Amino acid sequence: MATETQRTIRAGIVGYGNLGRSVEKLVQQQPDMELVGIFSRRDSLETETSVFPVAQASEYADQIDVLFLCLGSATDIPEQAPGFAENFTTVDTYDNHTLIPQHRKAMDEAAKKGGNVALISTGWDPGMFSLNRTMGEAFFPKAQQNSFWGTGLSQGHSDAVRRVEGVKYGVQYTVPATDAIEAARAGKGENINKYEAHERRCYIVAEESEHERIRETIVTMPDYFEPYKTEVNFISEEEFLRDHQGMPHGGRVITTGDLEGSRATIEYSLDLEANPDFTAAVQVAYGRAAARLAAEGRTGAVTVLEVPPYLLSPTSLDELVERDI
Amino acid sequence: MATETQRTIRAGIVGYGNLGRSVEKLVQQQPDMELVGIFSRRDSLETETSVFPVAQASEYADQIDVLFLCLGSATDIPEQAPGFAENFTTVDTYDNHTLIPQHRKAMDEAAKKGGNVALISTGWDPGMFSLNRTMGEAFFPKAQQNSFWGTGLSQGHSDAVRRVEGVKYGVQYTVPATDAIEAARAGKGENINKYEAHERRCYIVAEESEHERIRETIVTMPDYFEPYKTEVNFISEEEFLRDHQGMPHGGRVITTGDLEGSRATIEYSLDLEANPDFTAAVQVAYGRAAARLAAEGRTGAVTVLEVPPYLLSPTSLDELVERDI
Repeated sequence: MATETQRTIRAGIVGYGNLGRSVEKLVQQQPDMELVGIFSRRDSLETETSVFPVAQASEYADQIDVLFLCLGSATDIPEQAPGFAENFTTVDTYDNHTLIPQHRKAMDEAAKKGGNVALISTGWDPGMFSLNRTMGEAFFPKAQQNSFWGTGLSQGHSDAVRRVEGVKYGVQYTVPATDAIEAARAGKGENINKYEAHERRCYIVAEESEHERIRETIVTMPDYFEPYKTEVNFISEEEFLRDHQGMPHGGRVITTGDLEGSRATIEYSLDLEANPDFTAAVQVAYGRAAARLAAEGRTGAVTVLEVPPYLLSPTSLDELVERDI
Repeated sequence: MATETQRTIRAGIVGYGNLGRSVEKLVQQQPDMELVGIFSRRDSLETETSVFPVAQASEYADQIDVLFLCLGSATDIPEQAPGFAENFTTVDTYDNHTLIPQHRKAMDEAAKKGGNVALISTGWDPGMFSLNRTMGEAFFPKAQQNSFWGTGLSQGHSDAVRRVEGVKYGVQYTVPATDAIEAARAGKGENINKYEAHERRCYIVAEESEHERIRETIVTMPDYFEPYKTEVNFISEEEFLRDHQGMPHGGRVITTGDLEGSRATIEYSLDLEANPDFTAAVQVAYGRAAARLAAEGRTGAVTVLEVPPYLLSPTSLDELVERDI
């Protein structure tokens, strides 16, 4: 039986937005991690952690066991992540689903070149939802599977409503349809598409004379809103600042199937007060796994589907067997 | 990036009760498995699968990549499983939680002696619930975790009520308390104990003159029922045979925690029409993983916590990355 040697994992962070700040506070709570510093383009950040210039990151390669890439998926990760993977064992939360195979290939080449591990696309979707999709499917000869997102704040859609002229404050929540969730649980999710399964609910602060134009602009916005059922609520600035400052999110993966005579339903669900905090929590745990895999001599890109789950925990395998199995 | 070579996995089964029959029908649905035969003490079984005498099992070692041990946990697994592990790569569903570390040790020694893998204690609890307990705990600095079982048929408690004098037919369902589940979701599960969190509901067929004595005997039965809230319902034989012949079960693992400023809740739940079928479905998927690990040269006991999840799926890793991540 394998028994791993516990040693302190020296961590670094690149990027200091919502995700980077969440990773910082969570790394500090890990019994087996030490935060060496944050790499940033800025000279100083509002933190007590050491800050180093990101341009000189490679000089710190020997001092860091795992580098948390807390960078945006739109451009930063595709442009910068392979460069970091040449010098560090990395963990990212790259979430552009259709481009993940390309990202995996680029990170695999870079990480192998540097003799590092690049643990890609952690978080909850991709991440824990991916894992539950794969495991759910593996148990049924013919699985029926649906993913639902929300109720939660969509950053992209909130940005879109805020770009509408006349919108002072705006926010968009994705809301899954209760009847679609019930249908999925009953194994009748085959024909559910994501447009029918989700509604979009907006809360907007704007002058009353602008309400109708703004509502029309939002509900007819193609791709973002057009095929979806969209509800636009105008509220006071006071109510907005009181009730709509958080970043709640969540969702569920439901898998059903007929086990040659009986039906079974598996449901994995998340209810998150702050989306970046949970994404960071998953990233930090996979950071532990990445450092351990690298210490074992593994190199190249690794997905969440390939990680033995006990590597996520600071508790030893023997203790986990006694406690959790 | 690792790309596995797909080859047909030759499977055998020991034991032909509910679990063995479920494994048989599910192995036959796998695109990458072939069922070589069932090993039994009996000369013939009601099946079209080949049946071999269990006493001569070791002669078939070269023809089988994974042997599904579908034997009882009470005495069969402790007595017989290490012997099989010397000759075969095995997968079991051993479920005596407190003795799992001992079982792991015995299987590790036997499997290493034979150069095999022994994948132990699969199914859903232990098994998928164990995995979700470990992963849930790994994400939170201070996790609060509760497992709930049911609504479902408890085989052991049903046997207990049937042993009461005067009971013609009897069955016991374990029912989780809704308020305890809600408390766990809200992060207030710390003081929930399993006695408060579950009720026991019995359906009994017996002569009316015996009802009070039977009820009293059941609700005061120590360990099985005594600290639990127990409900005893007397029903007609007709109703019993119509409504209480199935083996439904399920449950949920709820983990909550404070991520240094925000709360998150993870819930993994199962709703199963037939308990043995889902246990078998998990065992079969881990059988695939066991055969693959053995083919890679791994030996010894392996728990569900150590298995890279993609090894459970008949789909290749590259396809899984495209489809599920």
